[in-house]
Amino acid sequence: MNINSNHAGAVVAAGEAMAGEIGVPMNIAVLDAGGHLKAFSRMDRALLGSIDIALKKAKTAVLFGMNTEDVGEFCKPGASSPGLAATNDVLVVFAGGIPIRDEAGGVIGAVGVSGGAVDQDRVVAAAAAAAAIPE
Amino acid sequence: MNINSNHAGAVVAAGEAMAGEIGVPMNIAVLDAGGHLKAFSRMDRALLGSIDIALKKAKTAVLFGMNTEDVGEFCKPGASSPGLAATNDVLVVFAGGIPIRDEAGGVIGAVGVSGGAVDQDRVVAAAAAAAAIPE
Amino acid sequence: MNINSNHAGAVVAAGEAMAGEIGVPMNIAVLDAGGHLKAFSRMDRALLGSIDIALKKAKTAVLFGMNTEDVGEFCKPGASSPGLAATNDVLVVFAGGIPIRDEAGGVIGAVGVSGGAVDQDRVVAAAAAAAAIPE
Amino acid sequence: MNINSNHAGAVVAAGEAMAGEIGVPMNIAVLDAGGHLKAFSRMDRALLGSIDIALKKAKTAVLFGMNTEDVGEFCKPGASSPGLAATNDVLVVFAGGIPIRDEAGGVIGAVGVSGGAVDQDRVVAAAAAAAAIPE
Repeated sequence: MNINSNHAGAVVAAGEAMAGEIGVPMNIAVLDAGGHLKAFSRMDRALLGSIDIALKKAKTAVLFGMNTEDVGEFCKPGASSPGLAATNDVLVVFAGGIPIRDEAGGVIGAVGVSGGAVDQDRVVAAAAAAAAIPE
Repeated sequence: MNINSNHAGAVVAAGEAMAGEIGVPMNIAVLDAGGHLKAFSRMDRALLGSIDIALKKAKTAVLFGMNTEDVGEFCKPGASSPGLAATNDVLVVFAGGIPIRDEAGGVIGAVGVSGGAVDQDRVVAAAAAAAAIPE
Repeated sequence: MNINSNHAGAVVAAGEAMAGEIGVPMNIAVLDAGGHLKAFSRMDRALLGSIDIALKKAKTAVLFGMNTEDVGEFCKPGASSPGLAATNDVLVVFAGGIPIRDEAGGVIGAVGVSGGAVDQDRVVAAAAAAAAIPE
Repeated sequence: MNINSNHAGAVVAAGEAMAGEIGVPMNIAVLDAGGHLKAFSRMDRALLGSIDIALKKAKTAVLFGMNTEDVGEFCKPGASSPGLAATNDVLVVFAGGIPIRDEAGGVIGAVGVSGGAVDQDRVVAAAAAAAAIPE
């Protein structure tokens, strides 16, 4: 199963709303279950360098079915998987990428957010992901 | 000057409306004047292979400040610029990419559309581009 | 929906059987609906250069939901989409790639075959694809 | 000398059997002595992000003729070869890649496994590699 346009639009809108609330313009990328681009928005004055980061955060989340910062745990000095972040044409392994799941827990896509401090990215990504499955 | 999110959203919405009217799900990409991704939407059931084509059509239009099919004129057998389409990490030189201009004629971005026959892509791109600068 | 390992194994085995029958060792690649590698076999003495071709045929078939040679129609001299084959990090647009569909007609993957003459690749790919959905 | 299809099939099957035993779906890649793909299987529900890792583990093992984690020794902080893992279009230098040798000790291929924790990948790769040369 794959995220549809309605849900992807809701994800982007919720991310933009939270970004507006905290006053930090963001890049917000939504990928489907296969890692293909579904929706994207760069808010006015969002960092150019964060386009690629938002896309790669979403990719990382969908490829591993976990939050980007959890993938990052495997990459830390002394952890099990040094160099993991260089695979898959570069992963981004700090917070801001979150898988989107259906009710059965299957990954149907992911959202990636970049533009602020990592904690800001995380907050916006969480708000975006929470909007993925409306009632 | 650069296209802003309001205009980019209007471009995508107008493209989606026309795509709905002709019954062909499309990928619609909007880039800014620097060729950086500003907004993107893949409609449900739009071809996966057209994501890259939509992005590259918009890139081609903004990089050369002309419609993609006009860039294609330079690439035809016997024309002046064989191999042109292989530059810039691959251009797409058939219709569906249109620059977006401000009132003074300056390029402020571009839209690229892919998902149907080339004539369908062209129609949707034209509708999308026409929405770039609302009254 | 995505092709599963049972079906992918049946696809590869059917392709190998037909390749054996015609006496031409083949590379056989199976991708899922998102274009991700699911199964692959290079038969003994199959051409090294055909590994990439088999993979790209399967990619082309899944990205456009049609046989590779049908994508090729758009790329012919005078056809609508010159340069199409250079998109998506290079497509292969001659026969040997076939989408795999579920009973509802949805694309759940694709098979790509390369190693012989194009007609041989086509025959093996057809045999492979026909095995995708067992009773 | 090169691994043949019979042995490659045995390697994949042994890996899948061990993966089933420990209950972790895996990506299993077999390359020949030249580093070219020979066989591949992604078990149902194996991580998408591990396709590339399995392939790169096998590549790393065959290119250096040693287990991936042994290549990793050269990459550790303070070791002799900082940046080694970035060569050869990215190596993977944690466990899960093992060279396959003929009776004379020559490298005839390699297997790469990814999908679980590194220790799980190692166990599955060891089982797979052990099946390479049946009596």
